[in-house]
Amino acid sequence: MSTFGFIEYKDASPAVKAIYDDIMATRKTDYINNFWKAIAHDPVLLKRTWEDLKAIMSPGALDSLTKELLYIAVSVTNNCQYCIYSHTAAAFGKGMTTEMFKELQQVIGMANETNKLVTGYQVPVDARFQPPLNLPK
Amino acid sequence: MSTFGFIEYKDASPAVKAIYDDIMATRKTDYINNFWKAIAHDPVLLKRTWEDLKAIMSPGALDSLTKELLYIAVSVTNNCQYCIYSHTAAAFGKGMTTEMFKELQQVIGMANETNKLVTGYQVPVDARFQPPLNLPK
Amino acid sequence: MSTFGFIEYKDASPAVKAIYDDIMATRKTDYINNFWKAIAHDPVLLKRTWEDLKAIMSPGALDSLTKELLYIAVSVTNNCQYCIYSHTAAAFGKGMTTEMFKELQQVIGMANETNKLVTGYQVPVDARFQPPLNLPK
Amino acid sequence: MSTFGFIEYKDASPAVKAIYDDIMATRKTDYINNFWKAIAHDPVLLKRTWEDLKAIMSPGALDSLTKELLYIAVSVTNNCQYCIYSHTAAAFGKGMTTEMFKELQQVIGMANETNKLVTGYQVPVDARFQPPLNLPK
Amino acid sequence: MSTFGFIEYKDASPAVKAIYDDIMATRKTDYINNFWKAIAHDPVLLKRTWEDLKAIMSPGALDSLTKELLYIAVSVTNNCQYCIYSHTAAAFGKGMTTEMFKELQQVIGMANETNKLVTGYQVPVDARFQPPLNLPK
Amino acid sequence: MSTFGFIEYKDASPAVKAIYDDIMATRKTDYINNFWKAIAHDPVLLKRTWEDLKAIMSPGALDSLTKELLYIAVSVTNNCQYCIYSHTAAAFGKGMTTEMFKELQQVIGMANETNKLVTGYQVPVDARFQPPLNLPK
Repeated sequence: MSTFGFIEYKDASPAVKAIYDDIMATRKTDYINNFWKAIAHDPVLLKRTWEDLKAIMSPGALDSLTKELLYIAVSVTNNCQYCIYSHTAAAFGKGMTTEMFKELQQVIGMANETNKLVTGYQVPVDARFQPPLNLPK
Repeated sequence: MSTFGFIEYKDASPAVKAIYDDIMATRKTDYINNFWKAIAHDPVLLKRTWEDLKAIMSPGALDSLTKELLYIAVSVTNNCQYCIYSHTAAAFGKGMTTEMFKELQQVIGMANETNKLVTGYQVPVDARFQPPLNLPK
Repeated sequence: MSTFGFIEYKDASPAVKAIYDDIMATRKTDYINNFWKAIAHDPVLLKRTWEDLKAIMSPGALDSLTKELLYIAVSVTNNCQYCIYSHTAAAFGKGMTTEMFKELQQVIGMANETNKLVTGYQVPVDARFQPPLNLPK
Repeated sequence: MSTFGFIEYKDASPAVKAIYDDIMATRKTDYINNFWKAIAHDPVLLKRTWEDLKAIMSPGALDSLTKELLYIAVSVTNNCQYCIYSHTAAAFGKGMTTEMFKELQQVIGMANETNKLVTGYQVPVDARFQPPLNLPK
Repeated sequence: MSTFGFIEYKDASPAVKAIYDDIMATRKTDYINNFWKAIAHDPVLLKRTWEDLKAIMSPGALDSLTKELLYIAVSVTNNCQYCIYSHTAAAFGKGMTTEMFKELQQVIGMANETNKLVTGYQVPVDARFQPPLNLPK
Repeated sequence: MSTFGFIEYKDASPAVKAIYDDIMATRKTDYINNFWKAIAHDPVLLKRTWEDLKAIMSPGALDSLTKELLYIAVSVTNNCQYCIYSHTAAAFGKGMTTEMFKELQQVIGMANETNKLVTGYQVPVDARFQPPLNLPK
């Protein structure tokens, strides 16, 4: 149970229903996650979060699956159980293979380890890694 | 300056030199990052960390650039300045475009936001996201 | 169940009972949270934590409710489930309205997002934000 | 220096200039923070972040100063130096007194401590803190 | 249930069985933790993680129990429930007394508090704490 | 420079001077860290923090050096630069050898890695690690 409980489709206001409809149409599903039903108590937040997420997670210079993998990397590092579970399921749905999952976890583990070794050994940033970099045009 | 200072190539023991040589050969560079020169005071750690990193970051089911992006996502979430600087430079070196960088930061920002909305609203995990999932064979 | 289980009032030593009595008197309740019953195995910690909390959370330049909101902001950012649940309940008990709760979560989400955008874009602190500031007298 | 450097007003595209103008008008200042000048390389992110921040941080059920205090609480917990510096300056600008600052830091410190005591002692959530709570109507 | 479920001894490949055998022999037990049975789906990760852990946690300049206490300190700070539970049990198994547990939690709580006070008060590092230190020979 | 600058001994109130005197006497030094001089603007916080730290860090079931190592483990995990620098210096002062430092960093790195592998693989806690444990009497 979430703070205010869930708002189910049948009980939703027209504004909330419109977002639910867009979620289902975009994701080609008839299922609304607990997350959306929990924050629907704040329709402004629901609308902004959904619209941002929809825009940010759609394919661009990075494809949708890569974005899901990044979402998992952040969520594991933050130890957000809900996000790990929902985005792991989403990533498998978007074509993540078990091999990709395994390499993803290896990278997350390694990055978390070296993040701390760098910090513990008080390593200063190399001059050549300071912006401005020689960036691609 | 790091805790024990840096071990430069010319001052390194044969065991450390061998790792430095492998880093330079693998990365096709004559530059050794501060990180390696700082942890070289612990040759066992140097060897293990380099060998793990080399294996984990080489292309597999995920390509090298995707792995760099994941490294950045973890490092930003952990607020590890050294890692952000060095892996951002590395990612540009491996072909990250400015468009990819921008989308990467958008995803990291969004994920960190929703990680906290989920937590703040105390949202329980949907039954359908609980393992075992219907995984790809 | 906590590490050593809970110490109930009837089983408590006089020193622990005195703290329990003060908690109940201060909070005008006959209920002792699991937290206190868990750390009561360390009476020194129990006493110090309760006395600090009592002093820090009492109204001063900031009112009690604002302090509860701050507690929630920290706890959500740290992903501490127990603290989120107990302080969310406490905040509602002290007059937090549902509108306040919603704005609180929006601010927490936004701050967590921009914290990471700043970091990912490697933004240096503006000179004018460096102390000493032009502080109010 | 940020990843791509700063976009100054005179060099900004019309879309970016429009955001800069709104920032200056809203904040009654002629100063644009490094943060905005750094993310202006991504005009979509700039626009969305500014509009969200403007809406979220404006007074509502919570006043503007309380929201700044919450921002600081999140930023200190995340150890985001830029955010701590800029929002501490902002809070003083909005009327935070030195007494309020001191109590704020006390609450942040205390919350971070008890977050970990709860976790270390493996304390389960009290049944009465589980939603649905007896919420105010 | 973990992402891919657990691999039990009887169902394990020879490579995984060899690791399981070494875990049981090293720990003088016939029990394999859920962690190993979960990551056994990635035999490369299983082998590397076990071998690293075995080497790192064995007594050296620091004894085994001190290393367990450090593991708990990290895990509580990261809020990793699994790790807190398993390493707390391991530490008691290696001789941690209840007095040691209590002092451990006090230190963890205190360190988390002062970490934030330092950050919130924007305290710069003292010159004398900057490396190179006057280190023991 | 800290938020309000430092309060030097000669400018301190009698209450602050008394704490400074106790810090110097306890630590057998004539040096006061920036941390104390920064928070001295809040004499209540200064007094409580010093008294708590003095009590918690003094030898008990755990010796002083072990407590310093734990402080470093928390501070590295939290990425608190000030705390890492000051407690690393303190630990060397209390007898930490370079070998101990190296093992400490190895454990911190390893713990941060496995904390995330456990989370990423969604591993549930083993029943036998759930309290109440078979604790030592």
